[in-house]
Amino acid sequence: MDDLGKEMHRLCSDLFPICRSITGNGVRKTLRQLKDHLSELDIVEIPSGEVCFDWKIPKEWNIRDAYVIGPEGDKIIDFEKSNLHVVGYSVPVDKTVTLEELQEHLHSLPDQPTAIPYVTSYYEERWGFCLPEEQRKQLKPGTYHVTINSDLSDGSLTYGELILPGRSEKEVFLSTYVCHPSLANNELSGPVVTTFVARWLAALKDRRHTYRIIFIPEGIGSIAYLSRHLEVMRQRIIAGFNVTCIGDDRSYSYLASRNGDTLADQVALHVMKHMHPDFVAYTYLDRQSDERQYCSPGVDLPVCSIMRSKYGEYPEYHTSLDDLYLITPSGLMEGYEVLLQCIRCIERNETLKLTVLCEPQLGKRGLYPTLSTKESTKQVRDMMNLIAYSDGKHSLLDIADKIGVPMWDLWPLVDRLKAHELLEAVG
Amino acid sequence: MDDLGKEMHRLCSDLFPICRSITGNGVRKTLRQLKDHLSELDIVEIPSGEVCFDWKIPKEWNIRDAYVIGPEGDKIIDFEKSNLHVVGYSVPVDKTVTLEELQEHLHSLPDQPTAIPYVTSYYEERWGFCLPEEQRKQLKPGTYHVTINSDLSDGSLTYGELILPGRSEKEVFLSTYVCHPSLANNELSGPVVTTFVARWLAALKDRRHTYRIIFIPEGIGSIAYLSRHLEVMRQRIIAGFNVTCIGDDRSYSYLASRNGDTLADQVALHVMKHMHPDFVAYTYLDRQSDERQYCSPGVDLPVCSIMRSKYGEYPEYHTSLDDLYLITPSGLMEGYEVLLQCIRCIERNETLKLTVLCEPQLGKRGLYPTLSTKESTKQVRDMMNLIAYSDGKHSLLDIADKIGVPMWDLWPLVDRLKAHELLEAVG
Amino acid sequence: MDDLGKEMHRLCSDLFPICRSITGNGVRKTLRQLKDHLSELDIVEIPSGEVCFDWKIPKEWNIRDAYVIGPEGDKIIDFEKSNLHVVGYSVPVDKTVTLEELQEHLHSLPDQPTAIPYVTSYYEERWGFCLPEEQRKQLKPGTYHVTINSDLSDGSLTYGELILPGRSEKEVFLSTYVCHPSLANNELSGPVVTTFVARWLAALKDRRHTYRIIFIPEGIGSIAYLSRHLEVMRQRIIAGFNVTCIGDDRSYSYLASRNGDTLADQVALHVMKHMHPDFVAYTYLDRQSDERQYCSPGVDLPVCSIMRSKYGEYPEYHTSLDDLYLITPSGLMEGYEVLLQCIRCIERNETLKLTVLCEPQLGKRGLYPTLSTKESTKQVRDMMNLIAYSDGKHSLLDIADKIGVPMWDLWPLVDRLKAHELLEAVG
Repeated sequence: MDDLGKEMHRLCSDLFPICRSITGNGVRKTLRQLKDHLSELDIVEIPSGEVCFDWKIPKEWNIRDAYVIGPEGDKIIDFEKSNLHVVGYSVPVDKTVTLEELQEHLHSLPDQPTAIPYVTSYYEERWGFCLPEEQRKQLKPGTYHVTINSDLSDGSLTYGELILPGRSEKEVFLSTYVCHPSLANNELSGPVVTTFVARWLAALKDRRHTYRIIFIPEGIGSIAYLSRHLEVMRQRIIAGFNVTCIGDDRSYSYLASRNGDTLADQVALHVMKHMHPDFVAYTYLDRQSDERQYCSPGVDLPVCSIMRSKYGEYPEYHTSLDDLYLITPSGLMEGYEVLLQCIRCIERNETLKLTVLCEPQLGKRGLYPTLSTKESTKQVRDMMNLIAYSDGKHSLLDIADKIGVPMWDLWPLVDRLKAHELLEAVG
Repeated sequence: MDDLGKEMHRLCSDLFPICRSITGNGVRKTLRQLKDHLSELDIVEIPSGEVCFDWKIPKEWNIRDAYVIGPEGDKIIDFEKSNLHVVGYSVPVDKTVTLEELQEHLHSLPDQPTAIPYVTSYYEERWGFCLPEEQRKQLKPGTYHVTINSDLSDGSLTYGELILPGRSEKEVFLSTYVCHPSLANNELSGPVVTTFVARWLAALKDRRHTYRIIFIPEGIGSIAYLSRHLEVMRQRIIAGFNVTCIGDDRSYSYLASRNGDTLADQVALHVMKHMHPDFVAYTYLDRQSDERQYCSPGVDLPVCSIMRSKYGEYPEYHTSLDDLYLITPSGLMEGYEVLLQCIRCIERNETLKLTVLCEPQLGKRGLYPTLSTKESTKQVRDMMNLIAYSDGKHSLLDIADKIGVPMWDLWPLVDRLKAHELLEAVG
Repeated sequence: MDDLGKEMHRLCSDLFPICRSITGNGVRKTLRQLKDHLSELDIVEIPSGEVCFDWKIPKEWNIRDAYVIGPEGDKIIDFEKSNLHVVGYSVPVDKTVTLEELQEHLHSLPDQPTAIPYVTSYYEERWGFCLPEEQRKQLKPGTYHVTINSDLSDGSLTYGELILPGRSEKEVFLSTYVCHPSLANNELSGPVVTTFVARWLAALKDRRHTYRIIFIPEGIGSIAYLSRHLEVMRQRIIAGFNVTCIGDDRSYSYLASRNGDTLADQVALHVMKHMHPDFVAYTYLDRQSDERQYCSPGVDLPVCSIMRSKYGEYPEYHTSLDDLYLITPSGLMEGYEVLLQCIRCIERNETLKLTVLCEPQLGKRGLYPTLSTKESTKQVRDMMNLIAYSDGKHSLLDIADKIGVPMWDLWPLVDRLKAHELLEAVG
């Protein structure tokens, strides 16, 4: 288990240097490396210009090199050192400018003087560089040469998709995004944890539900994917999770779906409450990621978010400080475990019905423990409560919520009572 | 605006000396003076004896003069000085009595020794005088001559009515009462503020709803009006307000309808919460005015009350201390503003639907502010939230409540999004 | 009234020495003594072996004598002194054992060294003795002779049943249990209070509802009764109470039905809130008595429990300390009163409708008190509120809850308004 956390952190380290954006070779390279861990992954291309609802797939952006040469002839900003130095989707430039002109294209953070900010300009053509405030302050008047060797032209948007069929056509949906360059919690943790969850699911012998798992660029990626699959998704998805910011060690967060009471919400809240009772609950008003599309009017998928420290809520967010030290093997591992537990809860959720009237006689079936310990007392109480609420109306998750115990405490009891034909699943 | 407050206070001053009751020339004179400010006002008479549900229109009461002459021959109580001195609906009297006999017909307030109480006896024939406790204490034994030159005979009940048609037959209803003599907050503030609100409505270029506005005597007036218009009112009224005690400067109050969750309640609570968050919320159990009729079983109109300091809750209530100093130009003005805001909210309330799937691309339409200030950030957030909840199910008021902003902050955003055909009204 | 409490306590004293169990002559003798106070009581026998849902009626157990003779030849444990000394349903035994062997069959309570615990083994054949821990500690090594002169063989399960017909077929159900030996609060208080409630009901001139009252052994008794009467009970019972632990003087308790919002729950909460506002509310998760059967899935009767100190929650529970000093005449009397008040509330519960539109004119009918005292003010307020909510949708109990007054304060008002044909019952 511990090893798995380290393995995930190692994959984050491998992917960290790649310059990802919403399109381009960085995304392709990232997806190919994920596919090394998840052979079933399909890599799909959507051509620039394809209409997706109110949007169009943008031109593809690729960058080879970028730097600023200072008045003294040395490279003072260099894309080779950090791909955050260049504003995402910067158009090509190669010219000499004064410091004043340069300043108009620089971005830094006065409050975080050592951090390089993460800035993009997907839908308006411009160019720019990002640097730490403390470096910017030392820039001297003079002549600077700026070079961005980038390319913005027709190509495609690339995403990864994996459908793992189950006994039922009903789907559980996982979505994560692969468009952030060298940033760790937001967002390499999401695709890496999702890859490992998908691997666990792929290895699962008997999947009840079908799993739809996608690795997309944020925003345009979810819109594009929805525009191609909306009908089937609306018919089949019973719960979904936007997997993001799931690798640091500090807190647990849940962000509600628009409706707030879908199965995804119920499961996420249940798991959080019992595994990490000090989690932070955010409402849909705090949203800022792909649930904006999945929960939009007319789309209305049951999708919420499970996170460690939420985007926008931790100081390193969207700066070079969100690095490989911010995420940890245990942080990734526990995020992975929460997500797995949510999936287990959905797999085991069913509506149960007692097969006899009144309480069954458990004694004659040896279902009362002969030695009464504190643990067995709790088990008997849980079993009697499970029986009491197995009325063909409450789901097992409802029952667990009603009696205030983790759903997983009930699984061995359900198995035992089913084996004695005292409980049966309905509907 | 400031001038409007003064204008309202001046009208209160003009009307203050008139001796109003539930019938009679005082009411007629009051309504005629209101009509000077509101030419569209119809003045309607209902003859004594007309049956109104369980009630009958009472005889009309008029009074010309009333006084008590003391043992030393001087007028010690004089209706000319304050019409509160005479118990409302007193029958005529003209006789000499001892102090003991007189005492049985006197009313005063030991706890408020300087105040003349307001007392009526509409449905039982008696006579009486009201005076300050401190004066009463000084009455000496001896012979008193009491004269009430009044008249209680068949006539009619008078009320004012104004229907302002709108694009829709659906009505907003305002009701206020004109039966209190020289009392200011309860109740000249109601008819005066309502007159000015009606004037504003009459001048409104494009009314969406029809407005039914009545100036009635409290109790019997609302019963009589309902008995003549119940069917049409039940079919058309979507929200109504009982306008009372709306002129002092101290607090804001809301009193729920019987159901408590009508559109009128939702609007009143919304406006109060955002304009005057320290308002006092009363339940229907605290009712004491015409909502008793409007919300009665089988009538069930969506009517609540918006007030400044509520009747019964301020010390000057129903005494001569509820005078022109208790109400103020700013008190009336702010009450007027609250009522207007409620009306604006109802006029602008509609159910909205996003015309595209997923979030629309706002950037290409110039709907994202180019300069990002704190105010524009709030606007963008409000706009995104407005879009997120425009699902054809939530009304704009629901959305404002859901996202926790004043509805009026959303109006320019709705206009802009409609202009870009991104939002449309449904239903 | 006081006398009634003493009479109930006397009946408890008479019944206390009888050795009751879930079957046998102790139950028969108890029911015969109850029948002396309640001649209408039917005593019913169900033969051993009859199948009741998942259960079978067990063999009948009778015991004549039991004792342990110590190494020095004296009776150190004697069933004659307390029937709690023998484990309920002990099989016959007559042999000599060492102290070590004896210890395996002894039960005592280290934390309550002076108490004899109450232990049973209905569904597994064994034998055993119960004694105070302080006595057990003094047992010396040596030879002991144990004798249990009992009998476990085919016979029957005995219960008492009483149906008191009313104007309506709709039933109110009372269930209490008669299977505990010399224990007072749990459980002689239940059958004794129920007997007196039944006597009061039998004497009631005009019963609106039919009353089904049963005296059964706990657990198997309720299962057996349900298996014979389920269909009719499901069709007719509108509210039921499990009467248990209703004789001590310390607290009041309410335990919810499984659904928690049945008429029984509403009545019990209403009566408790107004008569004993410091009552303890337990949820269905705290259940431990026959509501386990009455509320089980597919049975779903509207049954909750009304108690003084709840089983399992007071230290003397299931020990010899739960004796005739623990229950008191006033404790029994007040428990009886609570139950009676619940029944009165159900008898008087009806859905009311105002016969006129708007408020009726109460004055002309003399329904306004002429002298205004504090009490009459409350009455007028209650009357106006009663009228305001008599909309043909709220039951009288709903109205009482809505306006926050005890339902019984409204009964004289309902009578008066009905006499004036202002209110009528509907549905």
